[in-house]
Amino acid sequence: MKKTALIMAGGRGERFWPKSRKSLPKQFLSLTDDGKTMIQLTVERILPLVKMEDIYISTNRDYKELVRQQLPEIPEENILCEPVGRNTAPCIGLGAVHMRKKYGDAVMYVLPSDHLIKYTSIFLSTLTDAGEVAEQGENLVTLGITPDCPETGYGYIKFIPNRMLGRAFEVDRFVEKPDLETAKEYVASEQYLWNSGMFIWKVSTILKNLETYLPETYQGLNRIADAIGTEEEELVLEKEFSAFQSESIDYGIMEKAKNIYILSGSFGWDDVGSWLAVGRIKKSNEFGNVINGNAVTVDTQNCIIQGGKKLIATVGIEDIIVVDTEDALLICDKDSAGNIKKVLENLKICNRTEYL
Amino acid sequence: MKKTALIMAGGRGERFWPKSRKSLPKQFLSLTDDGKTMIQLTVERILPLVKMEDIYISTNRDYKELVRQQLPEIPEENILCEPVGRNTAPCIGLGAVHMRKKYGDAVMYVLPSDHLIKYTSIFLSTLTDAGEVAEQGENLVTLGITPDCPETGYGYIKFIPNRMLGRAFEVDRFVEKPDLETAKEYVASEQYLWNSGMFIWKVSTILKNLETYLPETYQGLNRIADAIGTEEEELVLEKEFSAFQSESIDYGIMEKAKNIYILSGSFGWDDVGSWLAVGRIKKSNEFGNVINGNAVTVDTQNCIIQGGKKLIATVGIEDIIVVDTEDALLICDKDSAGNIKKVLENLKICNRTEYL
Repeated sequence: MKKTALIMAGGRGERFWPKSRKSLPKQFLSLTDDGKTMIQLTVERILPLVKMEDIYISTNRDYKELVRQQLPEIPEENILCEPVGRNTAPCIGLGAVHMRKKYGDAVMYVLPSDHLIKYTSIFLSTLTDAGEVAEQGENLVTLGITPDCPETGYGYIKFIPNRMLGRAFEVDRFVEKPDLETAKEYVASEQYLWNSGMFIWKVSTILKNLETYLPETYQGLNRIADAIGTEEEELVLEKEFSAFQSESIDYGIMEKAKNIYILSGSFGWDDVGSWLAVGRIKKSNEFGNVINGNAVTVDTQNCIIQGGKKLIATVGIEDIIVVDTEDALLICDKDSAGNIKKVLENLKICNRTEYL
Repeated sequence: MKKTALIMAGGRGERFWPKSRKSLPKQFLSLTDDGKTMIQLTVERILPLVKMEDIYISTNRDYKELVRQQLPEIPEENILCEPVGRNTAPCIGLGAVHMRKKYGDAVMYVLPSDHLIKYTSIFLSTLTDAGEVAEQGENLVTLGITPDCPETGYGYIKFIPNRMLGRAFEVDRFVEKPDLETAKEYVASEQYLWNSGMFIWKVSTILKNLETYLPETYQGLNRIADAIGTEEEELVLEKEFSAFQSESIDYGIMEKAKNIYILSGSFGWDDVGSWLAVGRIKKSNEFGNVINGNAVTVDTQNCIIQGGKKLIATVGIEDIIVVDTEDALLICDKDSAGNIKKVLENLKICNRTEYL
């Protein structure tokens, strides 16, 4: 069966502020040493399984030009622009009806655009296995990451160890981000994996599930599908999509549906959730500093320094994140990386939208 | 007797890098809340005692234009430009021969251009008393700062408690910057004051001492004096001054001369020796942060933040100095402020003179 991919690139992540902005979110940034942006890496990674012309990018109008610039080989009609953000269920549904129109049916890999994967060959092998499970019957398949710590920043998925289909385990349930105690129990139980946000299913399967669990959205998606290629397309999309209930695929479908399977992945996944990830991803020097730009460091250890042309001099600092951009500078203790959002809240309150 | 002032403004201080540069040293910066530069404050402070036309500025050619811009009321002929730096003894000698030529004799206040004084009225009263001691006979008078801690960054002056002239004590000796143990002994003895680098004497007295202790310099100064106002002036100054031995007034005269007196000052003196001084001088907010510029601070305490238009966001940091300028950014732990010079050493080694 035809293999397609839907890469979700509508996110407006704030955790890489001030480098990421509303106008340039994380998926369009280069955070690795190779100079490629996150979305470019995502597309490149999947190419052995999916042809360029069968890759769809789901984003919003503000980022359409960025997608075209960074991914000029993606056909323009494969760039799907949501008129408004309605979370992942409508996003995936929109991709699915476009694919149904073009291919009838297909295996659909749904992938975030802003994660890193170190071992591409293991990833592709896992995806291939997942595709096989998805093709059999009406299975919804997801990839789970084997936890290496009781992380509280991710959702978890519980699987049933003795019920397998191919290389996949049957899923017992999806659970929200736990507190630390619960996360420790999950990890100790050896039956929980991190929710990676990657899904594999047939177009027909996900649409059937949408019809069952989000029927109003499904009907709206059908009206959108009928208008594809007509003069009314934009107008119908705008009208129908705006009326959709905002719903995540996890809550809207996965927590309710049957026939859910999970494959455990150990392919060096990183969701690049904050500036701290740059310390993991990029090469550090002998003092543990990860430096990008023009820096002079004196008695400086384990810092992340991201700048441009301007000289950045550091003296006697440790475990500090420094990010200098044209109009904004961030200096943040590594332990406080999660509080960068407070800066953005403050800026919003003061209506200083030019920095968001 | 006529009162004059020689304000020494030739220093190329590095401790306020990156705001201070070779092309814009500390005396020409504004580090206080009133927006006035250090040298402007120095001139303003002395005006109740010395007329504007009797104030001389000693500097070098590179800074002549800065002096003219910041002090347009100072007569141009009172801006004395050293062709090369030869430390304070030749600098003061040059001022003295200019004053001898114009006034015959005068009481001369010699003042650094980059110190702050909080209680101007007490300072002026002390200077007046010092002037009276200087006018009597051939006394060399200095102001000593009553120590509030065993500071190792200053020279000390030992006085003889039971030998007074007016409000001044006779000086026993000048001593170099001590180590901490010695500094503690000095402070405990109650007979040592900090060397402020401020001097009060008659023009005739200092020249007589130069003749005695630095005779070659004195002879050169006389040849320079003879050429003042002639076509040869520049040429003679260049030739004679360059040939002077580099010598501080402390070492060249004060440590050897007789009739030295000191008045203790308690006028809120600060030599503004590093960025830490800005934390003392400027108003801090409720979290102990001294902020100049456009900043958003989250969980930030006791920091010094000096920027311009660019947004500076800090998260979870404490006791950090942040100085952002057009082309260079400094992030320095307060305890490491003394190591900013290492950044400059590094820049020199790499021949990146544009940042010096």
